[in-house]
Amino acid sequence: MKKYDHLVRNAAGRLVPEEINGKAVIPFMGVGKYIPEGNKYAPPIPSCVNYPADGNKLADSIRDALVRCGIRDGMTISTHHHFRNGDLIAKQVFDIAHELGVRDLVWFPSASFPCHEPMTRYLEDGTIHHIEGSMNGALGKFCSEGKMKGIGVLRSHGGRYQAVQDGDVVIDIAVIAAPTADSFGNANGVNGSAACGPLGFALADSQYAHKVIVVTDNLVAFPCIPWQIHGNYVDYVVKVDQVGIPEKIVSGTTEITKSPDRLMIAELTARFCDEAGIVHDGFSFQAGAGGTALSIGIYFSEILKARGIKARFLRGGSNKYPVQMLEEGLVDYILDGQTFDLEGVRSMRENPRHVATSPFTSYNYHSKGNFASMVDVVILGATEVDVNFNANVVSHSDGYLLHGIGGWQNCLFSRCTILPIPLFRDRMPVIRDEVTTLCGPGELIDVIVTERGIAINPLRTDLIEKTKHSGLPIKTIEQLQQEAEAICGGKPAKPVLGEEVVAAIKWVDGTVIDVVRRVITG
Amino acid sequence: MKKYDHLVRNAAGRLVPEEINGKAVIPFMGVGKYIPEGNKYAPPIPSCVNYPADGNKLADSIRDALVRCGIRDGMTISTHHHFRNGDLIAKQVFDIAHELGVRDLVWFPSASFPCHEPMTRYLEDGTIHHIEGSMNGALGKFCSEGKMKGIGVLRSHGGRYQAVQDGDVVIDIAVIAAPTADSFGNANGVNGSAACGPLGFALADSQYAHKVIVVTDNLVAFPCIPWQIHGNYVDYVVKVDQVGIPEKIVSGTTEITKSPDRLMIAELTARFCDEAGIVHDGFSFQAGAGGTALSIGIYFSEILKARGIKARFLRGGSNKYPVQMLEEGLVDYILDGQTFDLEGVRSMRENPRHVATSPFTSYNYHSKGNFASMVDVVILGATEVDVNFNANVVSHSDGYLLHGIGGWQNCLFSRCTILPIPLFRDRMPVIRDEVTTLCGPGELIDVIVTERGIAINPLRTDLIEKTKHSGLPIKTIEQLQQEAEAICGGKPAKPVLGEEVVAAIKWVDGTVIDVVRRVITG
Repeated sequence: MKKYDHLVRNAAGRLVPEEINGKAVIPFMGVGKYIPEGNKYAPPIPSCVNYPADGNKLADSIRDALVRCGIRDGMTISTHHHFRNGDLIAKQVFDIAHELGVRDLVWFPSASFPCHEPMTRYLEDGTIHHIEGSMNGALGKFCSEGKMKGIGVLRSHGGRYQAVQDGDVVIDIAVIAAPTADSFGNANGVNGSAACGPLGFALADSQYAHKVIVVTDNLVAFPCIPWQIHGNYVDYVVKVDQVGIPEKIVSGTTEITKSPDRLMIAELTARFCDEAGIVHDGFSFQAGAGGTALSIGIYFSEILKARGIKARFLRGGSNKYPVQMLEEGLVDYILDGQTFDLEGVRSMRENPRHVATSPFTSYNYHSKGNFASMVDVVILGATEVDVNFNANVVSHSDGYLLHGIGGWQNCLFSRCTILPIPLFRDRMPVIRDEVTTLCGPGELIDVIVTERGIAINPLRTDLIEKTKHSGLPIKTIEQLQQEAEAICGGKPAKPVLGEEVVAAIKWVDGTVIDVVRRVITG
Repeated sequence: MKKYDHLVRNAAGRLVPEEINGKAVIPFMGVGKYIPEGNKYAPPIPSCVNYPADGNKLADSIRDALVRCGIRDGMTISTHHHFRNGDLIAKQVFDIAHELGVRDLVWFPSASFPCHEPMTRYLEDGTIHHIEGSMNGALGKFCSEGKMKGIGVLRSHGGRYQAVQDGDVVIDIAVIAAPTADSFGNANGVNGSAACGPLGFALADSQYAHKVIVVTDNLVAFPCIPWQIHGNYVDYVVKVDQVGIPEKIVSGTTEITKSPDRLMIAELTARFCDEAGIVHDGFSFQAGAGGTALSIGIYFSEILKARGIKARFLRGGSNKYPVQMLEEGLVDYILDGQTFDLEGVRSMRENPRHVATSPFTSYNYHSKGNFASMVDVVILGATEVDVNFNANVVSHSDGYLLHGIGGWQNCLFSRCTILPIPLFRDRMPVIRDEVTTLCGPGELIDVIVTERGIAINPLRTDLIEKTKHSGLPIKTIEQLQQEAEAICGGKPAKPVLGEEVVAAIKWVDGTVIDVVRRVITG
């Protein structure tokens, strides 16, 4: 947390600092306006001289490996979230740091989960200075209430790759938990009892971190194939009894929604896509793993089957539904950044058309293109939307930062971004005059689908034209807002926030699009 | 070519310069003695802003792409050699450069072939200043006779990756010919009419070059899977009618030798490996594609079958013989840097256990290890060996530089390096007092197998001990040398060389291990 003397208004009209955690940052300049100068981050040149010729990099324990990596005060330590709520390694790393008396670490996870609640202890006692990464649940609450020493920095999956690639974040030690690995450090997520699918969220870490530790519970003879992580980047390998809890690794909603309202939203979304000409032979989509999103995928499947056409690719987060589409020949490829169930893992292991992707291939904005912009339609969630189509995905209307960004910002670059959202939650309208936290600029958000109608961004005259005679309940976003407010009894109360900044939201290009302020409690 | 005023004696006793083509270089310091300082090369940060959102990077022609890449005097332009003698693209690039009047280019191929003979014209007229890469046949003769303006720099496959990674060579424009690609630049070598297997020799080029052009004759819809080259690194894609001549892509000896002497060498080599305990359950080997090497592989297969054991992995250059071993279950994996026949290509396309590798995974010495040092035995060729087990693989005893280094230097780091060579060629003894050009230090070369006996490096007391009661014809290298000289009528004449340096041989760590001097003709 920090109370700034000086903030500047960025291109989105938000007041943001020009320095965060002691480093200069650039305020958001508008979509596509900031052009990076300079060169990528260049890690030190290693030499085979300093690594065992027999390829055996086994260390005795995580502690042994951390000590041999020279863990010390102020370092940045990264972990990945492919184990989701079943992660057993990240906490151990900071337990050891605490035992060693190391202080002021920066934890740089690709995401955090409820299982990471015990980290609050290390944030309190000074072992961890601050978190750069998503903070769900307890950690988000802790941060929101101004209890974290530094300022949290939230980045999209692509923004995390960008930050590492560009040297905005220099990782001292990356700890990569892997379902399968060899003693050289080659690793994958498709085999072993803790199989989780790809390991793409750890790719940047492996490539750019000064020291890399692979931790596995399934050590195989060289070569570990596929080698999603290359041992050539790895310093030490540690064998442990268990890297993850399988039943908690497989998470996310894996059943289609049964809620009538949500089914209606799903159906409206699918119908909209069809009427707008988005569902065509060779199209591509990304739906995600929520119950509504899954239902939309089912509708798409039915349209494809009925017309005898197929999709070219489908972006995962995958589970059994996309896998079924792949196996039925309704889609050529699944390009998958994380699998949400064992069917997804099995498919990625067995089917060369179920491709493991990384934030580099899919999302990195400081690259020579990425494929997020080539997806015909992407279906995303949001906690709030405003009348200018700006959206929030990290905080609730009470100001609490409770969700990570994931690949959300990156996906906004698709050819059509649709947010299917309920008109209100707990009698709080979801469409606001202004979002509590700005995560995605309205110019990139094309369509809002609610149970009471569809609002199309006025910038998308093409979509408005294509659907005007469709019979779909097309309304303005203001109409939807008014309906919600009429039902809920007016506009929602503004959250009670302090002046202090507790977290910053980075845009995909590394600029600061907004900040999160302290929630005043009690 | 250059006549140096000042040369220094390196750790191998060879006189080498401290500057080549205007850049400072480090003389060889001994195996494992040079520890790099500093950081890897950092290419400029690109941004999606400057690339088409629809992923379509098609340029009209190679010329159009080169112009849009800003081709100009003095640039370094790279190509790869996966098409071997069937390459149709490299020459076109320099034809265009010549038409554009661009001069003093550095050509940085991963290897050159007889089909590249026409490049001599561009070396003569100043379009190309010099070549950094292997120079076979005509180009080697041209260079050897002192006709190249700059000094040729020869690197191993791993050394080439190291040079690019470390910034010793900064590639301005990489031209990557690909059997299959999409318009985003994702590319592979396993599909299409010019399928050649992997594209690993172009990996460093894609990662580090400032501008990258993919040229293909088989353009597929996004996504091109597998994406051995990531489109995220690519600036332009060009569709041409033909990238390579299939019958010339598939090259290398693909039949086992019928020569009685070579069969005897092959049998002796295999027996040696068996007696020395190298052939065991889970062992690994790299044999190569020559007739003798293939025969050794057949012997290994027979031993494995007879004992009911199998190899863990086999390093390719693959062709139908390793593929047969894989399909018969005699080996778990083929780790393959280039395929030499269509069976190899088919296997890599179809079999997930036939793995495409790159010089990064296999050979890069400035890495956190590589797997060359984990191979139990490697069988290599040589043009000359000396009594200290030093070996030459690039020049003939008449001083002509006629061969590239390939992965030869990198492979020397295997657990046992064996050179099966004839005792003499054209009545010239192959074992010399001193090699004409030093490519590999004797301390890394363990065994010489000839038709008249086997010499074990005295440093390998373990191998000497294991085979002393084997009944194999173990001799000293001096004995073998004397036998050859007795047959050939004495020591071979020394080549007639000028003082001028025409090429330099880099060691795997980027230091200069030797130079090649001008051959005095006529």
